[in-house]
Amino acid sequence: MNEIVLHNYFRSSTSYRVRIALAMKGIDYRYAAHHLRHGEHRGEAYLSVNPQGLVPALVWSDGTMIAQSMAIMEFLDETVPEPPLLPADAHGRARVRMLSQMIACEIHPVNNLRILNALKERYGADDAEVGAWFRHWVNATFEPLEKMLSERPQTGVFCHGDTPGMADICLVAQVANNKRFDVDMTPYPVIQRINDACMELEAFRKAAPMNQPDAE
Amino acid sequence: MNEIVLHNYFRSSTSYRVRIALAMKGIDYRYAAHHLRHGEHRGEAYLSVNPQGLVPALVWSDGTMIAQSMAIMEFLDETVPEPPLLPADAHGRARVRMLSQMIACEIHPVNNLRILNALKERYGADDAEVGAWFRHWVNATFEPLEKMLSERPQTGVFCHGDTPGMADICLVAQVANNKRFDVDMTPYPVIQRINDACMELEAFRKAAPMNQPDAE
Repeated sequence: MNEIVLHNYFRSSTSYRVRIALAMKGIDYRYAAHHLRHGEHRGEAYLSVNPQGLVPALVWSDGTMIAQSMAIMEFLDETVPEPPLLPADAHGRARVRMLSQMIACEIHPVNNLRILNALKERYGADDAEVGAWFRHWVNATFEPLEKMLSERPQTGVFCHGDTPGMADICLVAQVANNKRFDVDMTPYPVIQRINDACMELEAFRKAAPMNQPDAE
Repeated sequence: MNEIVLHNYFRSSTSYRVRIALAMKGIDYRYAAHHLRHGEHRGEAYLSVNPQGLVPALVWSDGTMIAQSMAIMEFLDETVPEPPLLPADAHGRARVRMLSQMIACEIHPVNNLRILNALKERYGADDAEVGAWFRHWVNATFEPLEKMLSERPQTGVFCHGDTPGMADICLVAQVANNKRFDVDMTPYPVIQRINDACMELEAFRKAAPMNQPDAE
């Protein structure tokens, strides 16, 4: 068994998700930083680890490489079950995965750095337009998410009941990302409340972008 | 217990994923069509079912609504275990989820109809440019996906071994979508081979867009 390595970048919100999950489960790992703006993730060395050339990628203690943050979190939850990231019942798990994937499939991919760069390169979008694009897709999903998180009794202190899990992880990483593009959180009091409850917890704070060795 | 309802649209590749999963598991359901180009999914009636106003959404026999195709497939696999959509071991499941999410998080979201429409509306992209955008993001992920699927012995007749599962479902739905934008499949012989193996199976054929009641 060797050390566990997380290939990541402090500002990447998908990396942030995995860092929170690792911290919640108390798993030690080596932090391997790849500076996305410098293109380090596109070099041969990293492509031999993850052919997709994206972060995060987790190299487990037996050498297995797992890419894609949602797949990594499911693996961690199966391999190191405590504390669980998903509820015990199938209906609860479906709700948490649904809430998680609203962020992971509808917001993050279209607001990813490589997409924002493509808007600049292909269409000449300036910083103001890139910001408007970012906020547009956040709001398109945060509106229904706020509505769905207003459901009682499913939502508690956290997205699903009173223990933090996968949906909270996705939510916190997205809210952190939003700050870089001045998303107005006023219409989302429930999302903000859950974010604030998470940030009271050591695992979420420890995993935050500003607390990483490559933070700028 | 009431009937199971799948809110979907024949051409939606995320709907196609769920139709394949339902067909593989032999689950009967009512087909509720929502014409995306006519905006039916944004009406009050449908928003009361799924506040996000997207398809697919599954209403289970007990009335529970589950949105997000990846969450729906995980729910179906937990609730109706046979035949499984995921391998029995955590490492295998991680690999299948990783391959699935490369498509579900990196290709589909940025090539979704609402994104393509936004490129036209915000940047005046014409049909040729929209096609170039679509192909760019397919190729950006299909290149590493082809490489990862060339790994033996993990890949077999299908993405993971010799039984079809979640990654094959995502692959087939994406390959079908690619045809609408003339993606050259020549560089992807493994992906094409797996797609063709899937299309030999009744469940994949039955779920295909052209075989749905709202097909045009």
